Amino acid sequence: MAHPMFVKHQDLLGAAVHAIESRGGWSPYADDVAAFGANAAEEGRQAFFDAYADAQFYLDQPGVVGRGGGEVSPYGLSLNVSYPKCSADALIAAAKTAMPAWTKAGPDVRAGVCAEILARLNARSIDLAYATMHTAGQSFAMAFQDGGPRAQERGLEAVACAWREMKHVPYRASWHKARGQLPPLKAEKRYAVVPRGVALVLPSATAPTWSSYPGIFASLATGNAVIVKPHPAAILPLAITVALARQTLKEAGFDASLASLLVDTAAAPVAKDVAQKPEIRIIDHAGDADFGAWLEDNARQALVFAETPGVNCIVVDAAENYAGMLDNIAYTLSLDSGQAAGTPQAIFVSRQGVRTPAATVPAERFCRDLAAAVGRLLEDPHRAVDVLGAIQSPATLARLEALARGGEVVRGADAIVHPQWPAAAVRTPLLLKAAANDAGAWMADSCGAVAFIVETATTAESLAFAERAMREKGALTFSVHSDNDNIVQLAEDACLRTGVALALNLTGAVVVNRPMAFSDYRATGANPAASGTLTDSGFVAGRFFVLQSYRGA
Amino acid sequence: MAHPMFVKHQDLLGAAVHAIESRGGWSPYADDVAAFGANAAEEGRQAFFDAYADAQFYLDQPGVVGRGGGEVSPYGLSLNVSYPKCSADALIAAAKTAMPAWTKAGPDVRAGVCAEILARLNARSIDLAYATMHTAGQSFAMAFQDGGPRAQERGLEAVACAWREMKHVPYRASWHKARGQLPPLKAEKRYAVVPRGVALVLPSATAPTWSSYPGIFASLATGNAVIVKPHPAAILPLAITVALARQTLKEAGFDASLASLLVDTAAAPVAKDVAQKPEIRIIDHAGDADFGAWLEDNARQALVFAETPGVNCIVVDAAENYAGMLDNIAYTLSLDSGQAAGTPQAIFVSRQGVRTPAATVPAERFCRDLAAAVGRLLEDPHRAVDVLGAIQSPATLARLEALARGGEVVRGADAIVHPQWPAAAVRTPLLLKAAANDAGAWMADSCGAVAFIVETATTAESLAFAERAMREKGALTFSVHSDNDNIVQLAEDACLRTGVALALNLTGAVVVNRPMAFSDYRATGANPAASGTLTDSGFVAGRFFVLQSYRGA
Repeated sequence: MAHPMFVKHQDLLGAAVHAIESRGGWSPYADDVAAFGANAAEEGRQAFFDAYADAQFYLDQPGVVGRGGGEVSPYGLSLNVSYPKCSADALIAAAKTAMPAWTKAGPDVRAGVCAEILARLNARSIDLAYATMHTAGQSFAMAFQDGGPRAQERGLEAVACAWREMKHVPYRASWHKARGQLPPLKAEKRYAVVPRGVALVLPSATAPTWSSYPGIFASLATGNAVIVKPHPAAILPLAITVALARQTLKEAGFDASLASLLVDTAAAPVAKDVAQKPEIRIIDHAGDADFGAWLEDNARQALVFAETPGVNCIVVDAAENYAGMLDNIAYTLSLDSGQAAGTPQAIFVSRQGVRTPAATVPAERFCRDLAAAVGRLLEDPHRAVDVLGAIQSPATLARLEALARGGEVVRGADAIVHPQWPAAAVRTPLLLKAAANDAGAWMADSCGAVAFIVETATTAESLAFAERAMREKGALTFSVHSDNDNIVQLAEDACLRTGVALALNLTGAVVVNRPMAFSDYRATGANPAASGTLTDSGFVAGRFFVLQSYRGA
Repeated sequence: MAHPMFVKHQDLLGAAVHAIESRGGWSPYADDVAAFGANAAEEGRQAFFDAYADAQFYLDQPGVVGRGGGEVSPYGLSLNVSYPKCSADALIAAAKTAMPAWTKAGPDVRAGVCAEILARLNARSIDLAYATMHTAGQSFAMAFQDGGPRAQERGLEAVACAWREMKHVPYRASWHKARGQLPPLKAEKRYAVVPRGVALVLPSATAPTWSSYPGIFASLATGNAVIVKPHPAAILPLAITVALARQTLKEAGFDASLASLLVDTAAAPVAKDVAQKPEIRIIDHAGDADFGAWLEDNARQALVFAETPGVNCIVVDAAENYAGMLDNIAYTLSLDSGQAAGTPQAIFVSRQGVRTPAATVPAERFCRDLAAAVGRLLEDPHRAVDVLGAIQSPATLARLEALARGGEVVRGADAIVHPQWPAAAVRTPLLLKAAANDAGAWMADSCGAVAFIVETATTAESLAFAERAMREKGALTFSVHSDNDNIVQLAEDACLRTGVALALNLTGAVVVNRPMAFSDYRATGANPAASGTLTDSGFVAGRFFVLQSYRGA
């Protein structure tokens, strides 16, 4: 008999598979707070603090050795949530015990249970929004959308992709081979999808759910157990996620240890130690580039998917809609204070200026115009904090100050007083000029909140500099503004060579650093910024193997 | 306009995709020599020697630094073929230049061209058979089937699998997202499949085409250029393959350097050096286990698919058809002199004996019965050489002699005089007894032609020993003979734990070491013997990435 969770979600899974192959846009989960009730945001806020502030988060996990936590909200309050700290070995042992029954359940049941976990996460989107806001620093509006429905969509997309791949493998076949006069050869064959092993997921601090749901659900759907080790500054969204996953797995008839939470602290990090354990066979990391490279070099026993920002570039050559382009760039730099991994960091403009229908805008003027566009976008503090959120890490604030002191400032990182959260660290994006030959500045690893405008001799030179950055550091996004077919062709060729996705002439609210599930492939795996694509077949296919058994017939 | 080679093979590709998903058996290429003409074998033999003996093999490749070769047939004659030796860097540079146009051609065209290469290889199956026979040592009958049509089928299967995966990615999408009162967001998106990079293929000496066609065609179909570095003892089958691929690519309008041959010698091997070059992004290796492990440890920049024999085991508990079981084991050990990678190496039988309908056969008697079954199978020298072929490597002969001197011989490696090739090194499989605690013997890396019979206390202990071997060394095959549901369940659980494919109660001509394309998955990737499965989605999906470009609309 089919598992009730598969029966419940079978149509959704079918629609999701259709959506990943047509990619015209599909949003199975409402991304409007109003869908959760007229006063959902306000009521949810109260409920969130009632539930979590100063709370001892309950998780029935094995190997508890103490409690940890200590997240401080970028909005200036201490959450004071504590979580059970568990021994990694105990979680791994429990995960291994849990896997055989999960493996035997097969692709349909696993996909159905994963879809049910996502449905329940969706129902908890307001909680997840506040948890994301007060750890990652996103505004409530952004934390709700990107930490809630859009993260869930990315998770469902991974489930659908995994389900499709696993369903390519039949359960059984009656094989026969004709042999002329001789009787045919025959065998009864069965094929099983078996998991790679225990998966370790290392979410980013600035997008804890969005960055981790693809890996979590791709691994779970393909039969693996998942251990989530959140960034110590952003545990809560993942604690809620794991708790809900465990409860759903249990209700579905499986061992809750298929999903567990591993808590550590910045002072005593455990990721390197755990990542090298032989039982860890898959790692999904989002965030720091150095750590991503370390994982690829050292976690040799695991399949590593590391997604890091790289150096995302914009090349400005010409604009049919100059104001629209400026608004788009201002918005993309300001969104989440530029802390999203796909945010542009280097903007190249040639000394020949920016061609527009009215006139050619000199490079110097473009800098001032972009600064003004950022100013206009962030003029109203209510709107500003909705776009910017707060700076997630004190280290980012310190870096902004150091950069502003040492650099040629086009627009400073202005402090904005948050209307509701006066202690929040809100800053407008820092715009600096950097010399083209000062790659040490514009190609440095960034935590966001800063962009460098680089003047070049020609747009062809701009493209060459961008290509160098994409080749050496990789990139998640590359944005080009031009009306010239030759420039567009050069940009497309550079993207083919470097393996970076291209965005052309964006002017509206479609920005490079907000990719959409079921339409945008995030990252490529073809450049140093990421070792895989969200969420293509390569993202799921290595997480399982096919195990055959047959008997002579 | 569709490419003529895609038009020609579109139906074949569709049928192949159907076949990989139903797996009931499909043989697109005739595997009967008679299909090539009544006297095809004899005429082909003359033509083969006319064409290749003492010949200078022509390949129009860049970077020629000299000539190499020097293969000696295991049938006792020197082929004396010479091949151009090229600089690896020159082949890599040419490969990189060739890739952009091949990438842009897209999945359909690439799949069509690959299918055409395979069709032309099929037409040359007699040549390929003699080339395989006189390098790998297989008998003509086996060299024809496994070196010809069955290798081609494995190649077509990889093409179909790659084509299916790539076709999941649409060429374009008009994306839109509703935003309540606001106008919807829109973008025009394009998606391209881009290759990982240059692929290096390292075929085995004992199955040069069969072991390499999956990797060659999976990489080519996904847009990568392929450099084939054959084993220095088995160059000719791959020289014919590469020459034909180059000619077909050229006719199809592409750069021949998408496929090239890199020749080296046993005295001056180049594989380690080439495998670590940064441009080499995919490696398919078949053969030596130590070298496979070395690749996985050192060729860090590449996706490595290493297929090695591991320690393939048989557990004998009971047999409904005792004689049929003996014949099956005798045949599987004798086929290709046991040099195929999936051949069993350790046979476990308990001191409680083998249950059969008539009586329980004591372990000692089972040893004698198996020896007798091998004797019966190989009694007639004409039939014997058809099954055995010749020993490929002098090192294997030397190892057989050393083992026979030091071991407890159940059946010796008898020399058989080949009726047509008196100088051929033909040996019957060596059967030795080994103590269960002498794992140094029965778990040693083997080049085939020898099997160890290991007595245990119980069948449960047999399974435990087999499981240990599969866990530590991995395995491509695991064969169990039992009528006991409990034993079968234990075996299935061990296979789930160790990730090894299971064959139950084989008695006829279906043997574990002759897997069939479009039905059997070969290896799993889930145990140390191989890092991937032939040919599931994981085998192809990592060979390409998806590159997106979009513009605001």
